[in-house]
Amino acid sequence: MKKANKKINAAIVVIGNEILSGRTQDVNVVTISKWLNKLGVKLDEVRVIPDIQDSIVKTINEVRKKFNYIFTTGGIGPTHDDITSKSMAKAFNLSYGHHNEAYEILKKYYGSKKFNKGRKKMAMLPNNASLIYNPSSAAPGFIVDNVYCLPGVPSILKSMLDGLNNKIIGGKKIFSKTLNLRTVESKIAFSLEKVQNRFNNVEIGSYPFFKQGKIGVSIVIRSTEKILIKKCSKEIEKFLRKKSVKILESK
Amino acid sequence: MKKANKKINAAIVVIGNEILSGRTQDVNVVTISKWLNKLGVKLDEVRVIPDIQDSIVKTINEVRKKFNYIFTTGGIGPTHDDITSKSMAKAFNLSYGHHNEAYEILKKYYGSKKFNKGRKKMAMLPNNASLIYNPSSAAPGFIVDNVYCLPGVPSILKSMLDGLNNKIIGGKKIFSKTLNLRTVESKIAFSLEKVQNRFNNVEIGSYPFFKQGKIGVSIVIRSTEKILIKKCSKEIEKFLRKKSVKILESK
Repeated sequence: MKKANKKINAAIVVIGNEILSGRTQDVNVVTISKWLNKLGVKLDEVRVIPDIQDSIVKTINEVRKKFNYIFTTGGIGPTHDDITSKSMAKAFNLSYGHHNEAYEILKKYYGSKKFNKGRKKMAMLPNNASLIYNPSSAAPGFIVDNVYCLPGVPSILKSMLDGLNNKIIGGKKIFSKTLNLRTVESKIAFSLEKVQNRFNNVEIGSYPFFKQGKIGVSIVIRSTEKILIKKCSKEIEKFLRKKSVKILESK
Repeated sequence: MKKANKKINAAIVVIGNEILSGRTQDVNVVTISKWLNKLGVKLDEVRVIPDIQDSIVKTINEVRKKFNYIFTTGGIGPTHDDITSKSMAKAFNLSYGHHNEAYEILKKYYGSKKFNKGRKKMAMLPNNASLIYNPSSAAPGFIVDNVYCLPGVPSILKSMLDGLNNKIIGGKKIFSKTLNLRTVESKIAFSLEKVQNRFNNVEIGSYPFFKQGKIGVSIVIRSTEKILIKKCSKEIEKFLRKKSVKILESK
């Protein structure tokens, strides 16, 4: 895995009416985000947009200039509502047509007889796109510049990510520590803020939870520097002791 | 419920590092989207952004001009990372301070003794914001112009939506019909596209699924006109019969 010295960020563009309509619960954002954490890439924005060419072109052209990596999910299947490839060609002003390598992969997978018109559509890509191989169901994703187009089916998407590890040049890995507390946020809010103000390169998040009828708060400490997480955690634990707040779990 | 004649749309802005980091699976988008469907409001975009004031201000000022309604989730609690209220004041160039009604609600709920500094922060709102009442845990959401700020905790958010029903002027309700098929997308792709091309005011989506080891396809037909859904479905069922595709479920 190659490493960059500076911070590397990414955005996800979820292309899918089925997410916007509330029919489908997206789970790909969590999958991609956790994978990016391991590579040292920080997910800085997610957009969910409809299956409309204009929306896709406009969004892609906006975000690809703002973030190091863009990952799209959805819209690369054989049906009329799968318009990611065509829209990507338009966004990058590339021609759109049969991609030789993708065509051969799909032809081999289905066999000549079953390689019908619908399946051939999945080999239609922007000119010169590189492929993202699909160990689950053959139909590849593709890369144009810094935009990585992945499928929407979660199990297939998951199976394709590891093949990208050596294509992503990440920055420093982001570490995190979680303290689960038996308390309410308002009791610790200002002490926590004071600690946050002393640690510039640490991000402290506070999240209330309800578990088995009891309320609590998760404190999440994130940083690229393990030593800072440790120091920050110690300061938090110090004021928690003073306030007699019980730490249920530290991980 | 009031009705507008034209199409009414909305966007959701999820304010939350915990979603971007992959720590938390968002479920609020599905909740809000389904509620909007009932009101005749179409969710047209979702953005997930970090707990950074500049990002919030910029995003809010961009989307509030593009969509009829904006719903934000997250960042209205008592801790340092809860900066939605302050950011909203900045976005709308309003002063930010104690909101009398919110202050009284919280004081009554906690009692004078337990109404500490952290809790008082939850009464800090943009000047003249209207409140969104919270039947679960008192701390209100708020409205500025067309932006509705809701909490991030799913159960609390859910409990607050119905109180907004009479504040949202929706358009025509969006209906849908789903056909679950035992087939693969490529077998029906081009027939489906032909039907889609004949129905302008109907949105046909095609989604492969894997259930109990078997693959299938869900066809979702959406429209504000029930009669068009019926007609469109009949045409789809016609070509399915010709292709001997089994309909597992129609709902």
